[in-house]
Amino acid sequence: MAEARNIEVVPESYSYVFNPYREAVVNVRPGDRVTIHTNDAFESRIQSKDDLPGKALATAKFLNPQTGPIFVEGAEPGDTLAVRIESIEPTRDFAVSAMIPYFGGLTSTTMTRTLQEPLPEKVWVWDLIEDGSKIKNDDLGVTLDWDPFMGTLAVAPDLEAISALAPGPFGGNMDVPDVRPGNTVFLPVWNEGALFYTGDCHARQGQGELCGVALEITSKVTVVFDVIKGKAIEWPRIESEHRIMVVGSARPMEDAARIANTELILWLEEEHGYDRWDAYQLLTQAGGLYVGNMVDTTYSLVASIEKKYLPGSG
Amino acid sequence: MAEARNIEVVPESYSYVFNPYREAVVNVRPGDRVTIHTNDAFESRIQSKDDLPGKALATAKFLNPQTGPIFVEGAEPGDTLAVRIESIEPTRDFAVSAMIPYFGGLTSTTMTRTLQEPLPEKVWVWDLIEDGSKIKNDDLGVTLDWDPFMGTLAVAPDLEAISALAPGPFGGNMDVPDVRPGNTVFLPVWNEGALFYTGDCHARQGQGELCGVALEITSKVTVVFDVIKGKAIEWPRIESEHRIMVVGSARPMEDAARIANTELILWLEEEHGYDRWDAYQLLTQAGGLYVGNMVDTTYSLVASIEKKYLPGSG
Amino acid sequence: MAEARNIEVVPESYSYVFNPYREAVVNVRPGDRVTIHTNDAFESRIQSKDDLPGKALATAKFLNPQTGPIFVEGAEPGDTLAVRIESIEPTRDFAVSAMIPYFGGLTSTTMTRTLQEPLPEKVWVWDLIEDGSKIKNDDLGVTLDWDPFMGTLAVAPDLEAISALAPGPFGGNMDVPDVRPGNTVFLPVWNEGALFYTGDCHARQGQGELCGVALEITSKVTVVFDVIKGKAIEWPRIESEHRIMVVGSARPMEDAARIANTELILWLEEEHGYDRWDAYQLLTQAGGLYVGNMVDTTYSLVASIEKKYLPGSG
Amino acid sequence: MAEARNIEVVPESYSYVFNPYREAVVNVRPGDRVTIHTNDAFESRIQSKDDLPGKALATAKFLNPQTGPIFVEGAEPGDTLAVRIESIEPTRDFAVSAMIPYFGGLTSTTMTRTLQEPLPEKVWVWDLIEDGSKIKNDDLGVTLDWDPFMGTLAVAPDLEAISALAPGPFGGNMDVPDVRPGNTVFLPVWNEGALFYTGDCHARQGQGELCGVALEITSKVTVVFDVIKGKAIEWPRIESEHRIMVVGSARPMEDAARIANTELILWLEEEHGYDRWDAYQLLTQAGGLYVGNMVDTTYSLVASIEKKYLPGSG
Repeated sequence: MAEARNIEVVPESYSYVFNPYREAVVNVRPGDRVTIHTNDAFESRIQSKDDLPGKALATAKFLNPQTGPIFVEGAEPGDTLAVRIESIEPTRDFAVSAMIPYFGGLTSTTMTRTLQEPLPEKVWVWDLIEDGSKIKNDDLGVTLDWDPFMGTLAVAPDLEAISALAPGPFGGNMDVPDVRPGNTVFLPVWNEGALFYTGDCHARQGQGELCGVALEITSKVTVVFDVIKGKAIEWPRIESEHRIMVVGSARPMEDAARIANTELILWLEEEHGYDRWDAYQLLTQAGGLYVGNMVDTTYSLVASIEKKYLPGSG
Repeated sequence: MAEARNIEVVPESYSYVFNPYREAVVNVRPGDRVTIHTNDAFESRIQSKDDLPGKALATAKFLNPQTGPIFVEGAEPGDTLAVRIESIEPTRDFAVSAMIPYFGGLTSTTMTRTLQEPLPEKVWVWDLIEDGSKIKNDDLGVTLDWDPFMGTLAVAPDLEAISALAPGPFGGNMDVPDVRPGNTVFLPVWNEGALFYTGDCHARQGQGELCGVALEITSKVTVVFDVIKGKAIEWPRIESEHRIMVVGSARPMEDAARIANTELILWLEEEHGYDRWDAYQLLTQAGGLYVGNMVDTTYSLVASIEKKYLPGSG
Repeated sequence: MAEARNIEVVPESYSYVFNPYREAVVNVRPGDRVTIHTNDAFESRIQSKDDLPGKALATAKFLNPQTGPIFVEGAEPGDTLAVRIESIEPTRDFAVSAMIPYFGGLTSTTMTRTLQEPLPEKVWVWDLIEDGSKIKNDDLGVTLDWDPFMGTLAVAPDLEAISALAPGPFGGNMDVPDVRPGNTVFLPVWNEGALFYTGDCHARQGQGELCGVALEITSKVTVVFDVIKGKAIEWPRIESEHRIMVVGSARPMEDAARIANTELILWLEEEHGYDRWDAYQLLTQAGGLYVGNMVDTTYSLVASIEKKYLPGSG
Repeated sequence: MAEARNIEVVPESYSYVFNPYREAVVNVRPGDRVTIHTNDAFESRIQSKDDLPGKALATAKFLNPQTGPIFVEGAEPGDTLAVRIESIEPTRDFAVSAMIPYFGGLTSTTMTRTLQEPLPEKVWVWDLIEDGSKIKNDDLGVTLDWDPFMGTLAVAPDLEAISALAPGPFGGNMDVPDVRPGNTVFLPVWNEGALFYTGDCHARQGQGELCGVALEITSKVTVVFDVIKGKAIEWPRIESEHRIMVVGSARPMEDAARIANTELILWLEEEHGYDRWDAYQLLTQAGGLYVGNMVDTTYSLVASIEKKYLPGSG
């Protein structure tokens, strides 16, 4: 068996779609430690409070630049790609957030149209402090824990090329805080090599990502891929030390909740020996269900159950 | 000032609506410890695995019986009613849950109609064990913590009489686990005496209340009322030791999320000195947003923020 | 058999809820010609372009005043009330419409909350011309046909008292143009005497009632009731010369469409001998589906099929 | 100026995505009469009542085959493509419809998931009769008018490749009966040559396309393209003899209604001299709003206004 390698992926250009037609930027093997450089969702156009989005993003035809695709050897359609997240390191000492016209959870948008004026534009800069363990904004006078995660990670869809702003069965712009170091994300494979993309790391984010812009950072993400042969899944799954989770993305939001919970029940049934209705009962009494994002092209909800309720777990 | 009393409320009949037209069953004063006996959502018609809903509920024209209204002296339209929950004690040694035809989160319903057959009926009985600190179901082989809360609590609406199955601005059938002992719930007042109703206690519940039926119990709930004069709120608020929360109830689910977060921002602005946009930013990076129920006439979502981020709190 | 009477109902006060607890204003018999005086949705507070809603409605605690309830002799729970609409005559020579803050189809609302400013306020006055056959607004320079209908008609719900702003299974504020003279509306009966309410007549309206305010008029509506004994329906039905229709009201809008079509299929099955799946097929290829309102507490959609496709009809 | 040509497009293979990366199958000029051969949505796999979808479609990895892209000379990003539909001729003497598991308006689907069993499978074959002026199904005993339209027509999106099952700003699988001979459809242009796709013609369809499958036919569609230089639109528009229309596609359905109406107001404002609020008023009182499809990946609604209300039109 080949020795695991350390591979660093520095993008020369970005993709703005999860695209099966784009040439791979690197080939990696399962087990390799792959460190991926990512830009932020604004491609670093917003760096200070004066970089108001209307002006700073005027030249940006597309947002949310992705590094990739990364070709994972051995991955074939019908397999599952496991992405173990080892670490997320910032490559600058601040994060930014902003209010962008007609974007976010508490404004009308291009998808939920009204005739109202947009909210004002505003930028917040948060500084990493205390050796990067905290992040602070002086205007709010608030210091929060550094709790980074990958806002966007995806495989290329089957035949389609989908905007990097979209979450979906392929993963994508889910904005789910549980896509964090220590956890493993499972994605369906539709193309040879899986064709993995990532970008849009966040220093942290509340549930719902309310204004639409988390604490956006540039970063180096280190992941290790594994390929589960002959096992097909339909929606992204996450495993943490204590929980198993499914992410459903849809509109309206209840459809995302339905997808996440249905897939979690099928998981409990297929892999953990649960009777379907008993799994439905277990989630009713002990399941978790939080909103990842209420701002993107579709909403992402996370259904979960603690591993201690899985048979044989203790 | 009058001395606080211990008052016990044992219903002679139930209300199936939150109703401003029904005569009060008792008058209480702010500060009184009021212990309210509540039936379960099925009015105790389901007690064993053989009590399948189709048969057991055939004679039930209405569900979710409420004890009330309780008239709180001094409460007037435009005030806020504070309900401090002291304890929830079970009055039987088991809880029940069930799959009911065309009811629940993963089936078509009377509101989301399809032409499909219903899911099968099924009842689960969970036994209180270990001095009532745990609750166990033998079919699942699962033991969960006893973590009780009030599934339904409400004030009478303004002019309307609303089904006890509904959540809304008046509180109602929110099915939100944070309505638990130790926490205080704040409700708008539209009628003299506030006209408080409660029922439908749960031994516990997962987020979303997936199959539509939590661990239903009969119980004695002890609460203490307070009246905040001249302060009007629009949606239910909850305060726990560490968090402040707002419950929004609506369809589609994103509208519930919008209500809960908007009201929480206004709360931060009006009472805690936050600039509106800074509050929007704070919730984006540090807010909580979970699903209370995805099964009732409207969905209930809970937006929250930790008190430690409120100015002057630390 | 008693002779049909002409009965005129002039309200002394209005109801702002569809209410089973309110005393009947008149008792009528099936076959009586009942002429009901109705106010407009603003209770005539807006009469000129200067009556901007923010000021004109400042003293209005409730909107959409209803005349009723009218007790229809012989109607009992489980029956269906048939309401044949004979005529709608205006009682003034103009109609009004308006943009009201946070109300309407292209603005955020109290149910779909955002942090945006409201749209501007504006009032349009439309004058009846050409012997009342047309209605004209000078600002738009547009003349439209007089095509009146009842925006709101309802029976009292079962146990509940529901805001007159709401549509639902009981009828209510459906804002469906097919509730017009010549057509018959069928409503479920939950109370002795059915307890019929109406108000909110419109000179006309587009599909969707986009800004939320049709051409509001005061009027005299003449209807004849009939009671269909022992026949229960679940949602309002309409029969015109050429079509049968069902109105479904729900949020999100697709749920209203599901209700309307499902109920229409069951109607075709139960009363017209259609196989269920053939009825599904017929509606797929020949059914109508338009939006009555996209602005009220729930949206109303109308599913329909031409009578010529009913067996034995041609 | 070049003479208009008659061009026939017979596909050698189909595209299952609206794809900017696929090579054009033909270059045409504005003014050419282009006759395009289209397959049906099932690629002709269902031809009789015995071709149940589960079996007949088992080998179909993708559905809704599209002919294209057609490169329209002179079309550049920022222009609008006008597609005048001259005729739709069937290339076989029958149409098919079917109930497909977990697809349609009155069943749970892959997007609105439940744990229920699917509806039964069923196929209907409708025969063209009376020289192709009528279409008849013997099981229903119903004869309907031949009223054909293009279920799917699109331009390639900007950067994305989107499933041919999806409607959207690019047009796509809108299933809107007003895409019919005599009308002109306007689509945004994001790529050189516009890159036009079409397929999925229907013999007719009710509003909503309830079971998800209209009367599917193979056909020859004749269109004439025009390019409107320097004029950008955001969503598909349709012009008929008497009406102008906008198609909005989104979930939930109210978002589609909001898009269609907002775009129609902007159209009235920008091209017809209407004040924005007067246009809002006009649509409120005289606009049309019907459901094209309630079954596809997003729902399509059509907002419209009669041309006679446009200034200078009468």
